[in-house]
This record gives sequence, structure tokens and C-alpha cells, in this order.
Amino acid sequence: MRAAARPDPDALAATLSILRARFGERLAEGEAICRQHGNQTSEVPNEPPDAVLFPETTEEVREAVRVCADHRIPIIPYGVGSSFEGHVNAPFGGLSVDTSRMKRIVAVNVDDLDCTVEAGVTRSELNNHLRDTGLFFPIDPGADASLGGMAATRASGTNAVRYGTMRENALALTIVLPDGSISRTGTRARKSSAGYDLTRLIVGSEGTLAVITEITLRLAGIPEAVSGGVCPFPSIEAACEAVIATIQTGVPVARIELMDERQVQACNSYSRLDLPETPLLFLEFHGSPAGVDEQSTRFNDIAADFGGGPFAWATHAEDRSRLWRARHDAYWAARALRPAAKGISTDVCVPISQLAPCIAETKADIAQTGLIAPIVGHVGDGNFHVMPLVDFSEPLEVERGLAFVGRLVRRALAHGGTSTGEHGIGQSNRQYLALEFDEPARKLMRAIKGVVDPDNIMNPGKVHPEA
Amino acid sequence: MRAAARPDPDALAATLSILRARFGERLAEGEAICRQHGNQTSEVPNEPPDAVLFPETTEEVREAVRVCADHRIPIIPYGVGSSFEGHVNAPFGGLSVDTSRMKRIVAVNVDDLDCTVEAGVTRSELNNHLRDTGLFFPIDPGADASLGGMAATRASGTNAVRYGTMRENALALTIVLPDGSISRTGTRARKSSAGYDLTRLIVGSEGTLAVITEITLRLAGIPEAVSGGVCPFPSIEAACEAVIATIQTGVPVARIELMDERQVQACNSYSRLDLPETPLLFLEFHGSPAGVDEQSTRFNDIAADFGGGPFAWATHAEDRSRLWRARHDAYWAARALRPAAKGISTDVCVPISQLAPCIAETKADIAQTGLIAPIVGHVGDGNFHVMPLVDFSEPLEVERGLAFVGRLVRRALAHGGTSTGEHGIGQSNRQYLALEFDEPARKLMRAIKGVVDPDNIMNPGKVHPEA
Repeated sequence: MRAAARPDPDALAATLSILRARFGERLAEGEAICRQHGNQTSEVPNEPPDAVLFPETTEEVREAVRVCADHRIPIIPYGVGSSFEGHVNAPFGGLSVDTSRMKRIVAVNVDDLDCTVEAGVTRSELNNHLRDTGLFFPIDPGADASLGGMAATRASGTNAVRYGTMRENALALTIVLPDGSISRTGTRARKSSAGYDLTRLIVGSEGTLAVITEITLRLAGIPEAVSGGVCPFPSIEAACEAVIATIQTGVPVARIELMDERQVQACNSYSRLDLPETPLLFLEFHGSPAGVDEQSTRFNDIAADFGGGPFAWATHAEDRSRLWRARHDAYWAARALRPAAKGISTDVCVPISQLAPCIAETKADIAQTGLIAPIVGHVGDGNFHVMPLVDFSEPLEVERGLAFVGRLVRRALAHGGTSTGEHGIGQSNRQYLALEFDEPARKLMRAIKGVVDPDNIMNPGKVHPEA
Repeated sequence: MRAAARPDPDALAATLSILRARFGERLAEGEAICRQHGNQTSEVPNEPPDAVLFPETTEEVREAVRVCADHRIPIIPYGVGSSFEGHVNAPFGGLSVDTSRMKRIVAVNVDDLDCTVEAGVTRSELNNHLRDTGLFFPIDPGADASLGGMAATRASGTNAVRYGTMRENALALTIVLPDGSISRTGTRARKSSAGYDLTRLIVGSEGTLAVITEITLRLAGIPEAVSGGVCPFPSIEAACEAVIATIQTGVPVARIELMDERQVQACNSYSRLDLPETPLLFLEFHGSPAGVDEQSTRFNDIAADFGGGPFAWATHAEDRSRLWRARHDAYWAARALRPAAKGISTDVCVPISQLAPCIAETKADIAQTGLIAPIVGHVGDGNFHVMPLVDFSEPLEVERGLAFVGRLVRRALAHGGTSTGEHGIGQSNRQYLALEFDEPARKLMRAIKGVVDPDNIMNPGKVHPEA
């Protein structure tokens, strides 16, 4: 694989001139729009592309990729820009390919519980479209992310414990490869043993192998009954033990989310709630009316065994929406705890038996380091986010925050976990990829990158620690 | 990628001499044992390796791979030999690496519902080991296959509709790559967005990229209650419509299997049952006692809507075992319909809405061709097996059988499906890989093969149509 480098200025000028002639105003070159297409969500510094293209079809993406490939210009796929890890940055300049005009719902196959959408459709746009079908698309990262971006980062969210992640829910993709060829990676069949699993190779490859232009997704039936609410626990350990017991006894919980007391304070203040300021589990049960009752009874028994309760039901749909809106706003609530600071996003995921010790060690570390760092987590999967709030004008504080994150990742790996459960590697987690995988695995990843994209034009500077 | 070829005789002799000195009697070179390690299950001709090695550890596999790599000797991983598609054949000779002495259960993590096993452990050995833990491993191909072989072929079975396939249930692998390096492809975390999905790249790669030596698997809790039985339908179409409605309304059925009347006749005769000789669905429900009751009530209502029933309950565990034993013996039952013939195994899988038309067209084709070809299927996934019974001493009949299979695959692809739902490509489905994937996808598969295994020593002559 060629080392990533800024393009030759003449080659860049030639490329932009061709694209300008072909796409007119759909090629944007203004400073503001370029900056908007660099990272804007997190502590990762903004690195704008040289230009932004707004293609409308897979064929147009192919045209742009061909021009860029001919001139060795970096291509950075862009959804809505909600990545925390610098995925959309252009450290070597190049062309941001913004999929926001690729909004076609290509097909909804109600009988097969699947659909095909273009990459720029967001999860809530898809769910609005599905409203009258009795089906929904369950994966819900906090942001209203594009489905292309979610596939590219192997995203998930609060109900992955029941419905899986993009890994399980992407049946097939349409992709544009760096040589400008278009490929369909699979069929609508629910399972297949035909050949290498190209769909899963591209899901989570973060734009470093291909541009995803269409996604065929599994859908789920809207459950007949939904119930849920909030359950307080005397300690994080007790809450984690209740989670383990719930998963182990096979209660098919749809959502089971943890907040520590610091995060609850933040949410109470930000979302004007009056939740008890103690570790909480947010839960949701999906099923038939009788099934949902049974699940919640079982959970109540488990919670009581670990000193939890009383469970506060959100019986009305509006109350539930309010709670889950607050849960999805947890990031902003946390940031509001210290408005002058930025949050360093983290995303470790451990086997659920390791949740309690891993979180306990992390809380001790937070206390010792003197950081403000609320915790929120998709604990049914063992995934939790700690967000140290750091004043980036204070270099020592930044150093302390980043050192804390390094210890957090090492701790998760030591507990048998992963550095990132759902955010992806991007720029900021590249150093941890090298801790998580052995050298032969990383060599295999580099070999695949090198053979698919020898000129390293697809999102250079992401995923691979060396690039 | 180097074209596959028989090894140089001197290189082969040198390799066997090194392995003989190192492994003694664990290197077997007798004609009978070599023939046993070629294909023995189906119509695919037997192609024996030059020798068979019985390694006991990952480290020993690495040693063998290194010697073979140095001399460019083909390596063919071998589990129990239950593949129908010629996976274990050695068309270019070489070394069969038999994992039957790799039987260690490395770890069972009950709290995390996962375990790690060596590749030679079979699914029922694992389930016997788990007996007292309250957990089980749900994936059940007909044969008592090795878990290494099941991972290599992305296998599934009767309850994939509820529990998924090896794609969803392999959390991580230990592999030996063709350069003799050992790698661990993932962690025990339930989900991860860290780097390329090497686990899913190797699952289903059929030994053409690496030898799988250990597998970390998700486990499921043994359901509190199980119920099931058999439901007759007036036609295949009615049975398929009932399947679609069951899946669509979200009944979390654990097994929903179709047999056509020809297959029912075969099973009645082979397994001494007295099932009604009409299209049947075999069902199983898993859950709490109340949940199982609710599921079966719902299914009964659906079946009645399509003229199905009455549902015959198998209330005792022994009756259920007998039924499912018969279902798993369907292959042998079908072959017994015409003992002088061989069955050509097929494995198409289509979106469930396409099941009824695809099976109807297939039955018309069977009638027109005059074949005996019973049908059995994991219809909850859209996967069904038609097995034309063909006298291989009659070339015209063989031609007719193979032409029928070609039409079946083309029909499934035209209905949005795949050529193989769970068997894999092996040798016999290679021609269909070229129909199923576009040229850029096949080029991508070849590129990965070429960069990982440039000398083409890993199971040459499998998967890739060109190899």
C-alpha cells in the first residue's frame, strides 16, 4: 500500500476541474462547507477536504471515484458527519463524497422483512417511510446517522442486545471500489454460504476499501406491545449483576441501558427529569402483551434479588419517548456538565461478566484522576461509554484525559473486550487497534487494504495505525 | 495467485519425510486412510490426499503449515468429512490436516454465554460437555459435524431461524495462516467496530485462506419450555404461506421445517413413522411455558388460515427426539428411496416471499424431468434442499440430474436468492459462484485469496471457479 500523502497540486487542480465541469454546483469548494465536512463532533481536530461532491446515484459516485483514482486524489465518504472518531476528516485533503442527496428508498419487501436504501437515507427517514408497513429498522445510534455511515462503522445502539448491530442487519451492499467498478456484495437471502463474506468485510471498513452506495437491510416487525421504564440500584455492581442475570436467564430484553449517578445528574439537569440520582437501568421490553408482562415480572424479580427497585414504569408512549430522548441526549447532557470542556468519547465493550469489575476499576481511576467523566452504557452487550470532560486549553488536563482513555482501553482488553463496540477506529482509535490485534491479524488487514486500494485513495489515515 | 498444481514429487517426498520424522505415526500415508479423507458423502468423485496428519495443537498445525509452505504442498483441513460439496477432496494431492485429535474444550464462560473449543470438537460433543451448565450450542447441521468444519463452511441447520448461523455465532477464531503465523481474529466482546471483520472473512472461507484451530462461540440458554410437532398442509404453497405469516407476525419460532409429500413417504419408510403423506411443517417453540403456549396458539391460528392442521403435538421429549431424528435422517431416508442411485445435494436459499413460487416451479420441473427428487427445507430462512436421485452408471440420467440442478440454482438466483444457504461452494458449486456474484465481487475474492495465499496451497481447487 502506498503511503498516504497530500495529492500533487496539479493533479488536484485537474481533478477538480473535471468534476466541476461534470457536476457544476454539486461540487462545493468553499472554505466553510469544506470545514463542515471535517470532524465537528468531538475533540478530534477539524481537517477539511479540498472539495465536497454531492452525487445523486451510484453511477455518479463511480464517475467521481474514477476521476480521483486517475489522479490519486483521496476520497472520504460522508454521511451526516456524526462520527466521534474523525472518520470524515481529510488529513491528506481530497474529495469528500457527501451522500446526502442519495435518499432513495429503492425497495421495501414487507413479506421478507427487508428493504434496500441508498446510503444517504438516515435511520429516522427510513423509519418514517416504514410507518405504515408494520415494520421498523431497529438500530439506533444516538445521532440520526445515515445508513451508509452506520454500515461503514458497524454501528449499533440501544437495542443491539435484542436486534443485533449493522453486522447482523446488513444483508448486502452496493459498493464502488477504488478501481471504479460497482459491485453487489450479496443477495436478499437470509443466509448464504457462497464465497467470502464481502458484505461483512465492507461493513466496518470505514470507507477505506470502498464507497457504500446502497444497503439491503433486515427489518423487524413493530412489536405488538412495548413496556419499559427505569430501575434504580444501590451500586453499579448491583446493576451489572442484574444485567448479567437478565441476559443469562434468557429474558429477551429489547433495551437495557446503564447510567451512573453522574450521568443521571447530567440528564436530570439537561432533560428536566427527576430521576433518582443513583445508578439506573433504563429498560424496554418488546413482545406480545402477555410476553411483555412476563418479561417485566421476571426482570423485577431479578432486580429485587440485587437490591434494585422500585421499577418506575413509563406506561404512556410519550413518557417512554421522553425517557429515551433523554437517554439519546446523554452525550449532550454530559457535555453540559462542563460547557467550556470537550468530551473525549470512548467506547469499550467487554464480556458482560467483566462489566462490574471493569466499571468499578474505571470509577476508581476517575476518582483518582479527579476527572468529571460520566458513564452510560449498552450494558446488555457489555458496551459502555465513559466521557472525560477536558478543557482543551489546558495541555496537562488533556494529557491526563488521554492517559485515562489509554488505561480504559487497556483495561477493557485485559478483561477480554474490545477498544470500540460501535464507534469504529477512525483516526483516534488507531493506536488501540495495534493493542487489540496481534501482528498477523494487522498484517492481514493491511494486505487486504493494499490489494484492494494499492494507491491508498480510500479514506487514507483511518483504521490502519501505519497509514 | 499461482495456478493450482500437483506438487513437485521431490518436494512432496521431502515434506512427508520431515513430517514423518516429526509426527511419527500421526502422519498416515496408507491408501485406505487417504481415500477416507477424500469426499465420501455425495456424488462428487473421491480425490484422496497424499497423506493425512493428525495434529493435536495449534502449534503443531503451524509446524505442518510451515513445512508445506516451504515446499508448496497443498493443505486440506478436515473435520469429520460430512461436507456434500467436495470440500475435503485433494484434487492436487497434498496433506489432509485432520483435526479429530483437537478435542479440547478450552473454556466455557457460563456468565457470558460463550465458550472456546478446538476445531475438532463436534456439535454434540460440545452439547454433551455443556449438559450441566444450563446452556447449549444451537446450530445443528444434519451430521454431527466438527465446529471447525462448521465455521469453515458457514454452516447452519434447523434452528438458524431463531439462533442464527455460524456467521452470527462465531465470536472469534484462532487461525494458522499460509505463512505459518498464528492469529486470533477477535475478542469475546459481543460486538466490536475495531478494524476489518477478520472473523467473518474466515468463517465461510472453506480452508482456502487459513486453517481454523479454535473457535469462540456464542451459546444460548436451554429454554425453560419446549414444544413442537407436525402440521400437515393441503399444498406446498399453503405451507409456505403459513411460514411467511409466522415469520412476519414475529412468532419467535425455533424451528420451522418443510417436507414435501415425497420426502414424508421416504421418512415414514426409513424412520418407521406414520406421518400423513402430504406437505408437512415440523415446528418447535422455545421459551417460557406461557410463551411457548402463546407461540403455538398463534401458529395454529395461522395454519388454520391456510387450510393446515390439525397440528399433531409431540408432547413427550422422546417423541420430539424421534421426530427430529427423522428430520435429521431425511437425507438417508431420501437416498433409500432408490438405493442404487446417488443423491445430488442442492442447497438454494431465497427470500421467504419467493419460497412458494420457487418451490412450485421446481416441482413442475421435477415432474417434467421425471426425476425422483424429494424436498426438505429450513423454510423459516428460505433455504430448501431438493435431492435428485440419479443412477450414476447412466450418463444421460446424470446429465439430466445436473441440468436440473443448474436450472434450480438459476431459478433461486432469479428469485433474489443464493446458490448455497449452508453447504458452501466446495468443488461442486464453483460454477454457480460465477453466476451469483458480479465480476468485481469475484475479482475481490480472488484478490484476497491471492494476497493471503499467493502460492495457492490452502485447499486449492475450492470456492474460486478459476482455481
